[in-house]
Amino acid sequence: MELRQIYAPVEKDLVEVETLLKSTSEVDLPHLAKLIEYSLESDGKRIRPALTLLAGKFYNYDLNKLIPMATALEILHTATLIHDDAIDHSEVRRNKPTANKLWGEEQAVLLGDYLFAEAGRLTATTNNLRAVKLFAMTLKTISSGELDQAVNAFTLEQSTEQYVERIARKTATLFTTSTESGAVLSDAPEDSIQLLIKYGYNLGIAFQIVDDILDFVGTESLLGKPTGSDLTHGTVTLPVLLLVRHCPHEEHVKRLFQDRRDTETTQAVIDLVRGSPSIIQECYRIATDYCERALEPLMGLPDNRTRRSLEELTHYIVRRRK
Amino acid sequence: MELRQIYAPVEKDLVEVETLLKSTSEVDLPHLAKLIEYSLESDGKRIRPALTLLAGKFYNYDLNKLIPMATALEILHTATLIHDDAIDHSEVRRNKPTANKLWGEEQAVLLGDYLFAEAGRLTATTNNLRAVKLFAMTLKTISSGELDQAVNAFTLEQSTEQYVERIARKTATLFTTSTESGAVLSDAPEDSIQLLIKYGYNLGIAFQIVDDILDFVGTESLLGKPTGSDLTHGTVTLPVLLLVRHCPHEEHVKRLFQDRRDTETTQAVIDLVRGSPSIIQECYRIATDYCERALEPLMGLPDNRTRRSLEELTHYIVRRRK
Repeated sequence: MELRQIYAPVEKDLVEVETLLKSTSEVDLPHLAKLIEYSLESDGKRIRPALTLLAGKFYNYDLNKLIPMATALEILHTATLIHDDAIDHSEVRRNKPTANKLWGEEQAVLLGDYLFAEAGRLTATTNNLRAVKLFAMTLKTISSGELDQAVNAFTLEQSTEQYVERIARKTATLFTTSTESGAVLSDAPEDSIQLLIKYGYNLGIAFQIVDDILDFVGTESLLGKPTGSDLTHGTVTLPVLLLVRHCPHEEHVKRLFQDRRDTETTQAVIDLVRGSPSIIQECYRIATDYCERALEPLMGLPDNRTRRSLEELTHYIVRRRK
Repeated sequence: MELRQIYAPVEKDLVEVETLLKSTSEVDLPHLAKLIEYSLESDGKRIRPALTLLAGKFYNYDLNKLIPMATALEILHTATLIHDDAIDHSEVRRNKPTANKLWGEEQAVLLGDYLFAEAGRLTATTNNLRAVKLFAMTLKTISSGELDQAVNAFTLEQSTEQYVERIARKTATLFTTSTESGAVLSDAPEDSIQLLIKYGYNLGIAFQIVDDILDFVGTESLLGKPTGSDLTHGTVTLPVLLLVRHCPHEEHVKRLFQDRRDTETTQAVIDLVRGSPSIIQECYRIATDYCERALEPLMGLPDNRTRRSLEELTHYIVRRRK
């Protein structure tokens, strides 16, 4: 099943999200308008807004609240990517030049700030204080996770637990916020909210693990950005941690411990991961485990078309090539 | 009258703000804790939180709401400075190395993001949706103002109206938010809220004009950062606009139009401004005009010690040397 089919229960409402995203660029300053429009163009998977809408479908589906919330979370996600790209000096994302590549890092940072604020404003239009607090906590968690990642760059002495903790902050938090906010804004009972939080968390972890696998074995044209960029930027992900565990005495792995910023060694390690089907398989196995954990709480929700969408999404996330 | 005396009606509550600022650094990640603590150390003038508290003093002074709001606005202000310094590659502020100088631009950008979120969270604890929306709009306005400034860097063809519009976004907005939020959270009647908004706006414009004057004629040790840095970064402020208007045929001014990034010409123009008491006086006259406009709406507020503090603050803002 492809994303479009998975999104079917909320398809027409996702069109509303696109419309609201587009209207974000209707601002007085023409240059700012151009930057916003470029950044929010509809070329993403829109998983986060889809999660908010789908989570909202189980109870009191109030589009006046769910559409701005879903849109806010896509904008928040975009803003974090813009800042990531600016500080990593990344040049390409989604097969397009990044904002920092086109307009410089200064403008990219300020654009991200603007989008954080716009996302916060949209969240506030739900008039729901729990959603507003959730939004603020999400940005706190994401940025502290990114900061932790930056501090631990080129550090191989990490446990997989630390890795999971890091991607929980960096990625799973926003997935959790997507499902939680959808549930909260549709007046779901607290136990259902908690089930959707569990689903979002585990789905987010699985999503990021697959992202980290694809960074090694994916196709650049499908990914829309260069492969191998995580390790090049010093971000140590699951495939590398498993390589270190399985082949600690391999010459390049040893050298990676010694001289962490050596380009040749980094490339050799990237090639080692790519050439190790067993490592890739193990990573996929771990991602699939998290998908199983995502499916479990769904059993406590009403059995309907939307629940099947959320189930399908877990399979899609592992299967995807981009 | 010095700041401490001006702040007298809210002095003990400003201590609470300091305590709350300090507690912001109580986080799980030790490195992040260090960054936050360093950034929020009590070496600022704390004008914004003081404005929130003073504005709140006229009506229902509810510290449970005013303290977090005042703290949030100081954190928001700090976060914008951290981002400014990171994108300008500034090395010193308040006589201390900047966050980007100490920990690099990557960490400085993420620290700013974290602080935006923390400020948003604190604002949400007021449980007041108007304050939350105001907060989001403020960050939108500031970042779009900064972006406009970046786009117009090294552009001399600006009117003073454009300059005022830019500093309104960049600085006066946060002053307005400070007084408005204080008024809103103390259940002030709408006409009093509007008076305090007018006061905040005009005070903010005056404050920034004086800032822009001091950037030319101030003392580095008092300012805590290098003088002349605005023009060096391409930011054209009132003193330069007046110089261009008064001496359009001056050789260096003409050359500044032609080759805007030439360091020698920039330095010559900085020296020209410094050596022109008439230009500095005219800038001060304009700042004083805005102070007069700030004083006017105060007449509509209860005549008490707090009102006199707000009056004194307008005088302090022009008189200050740092």
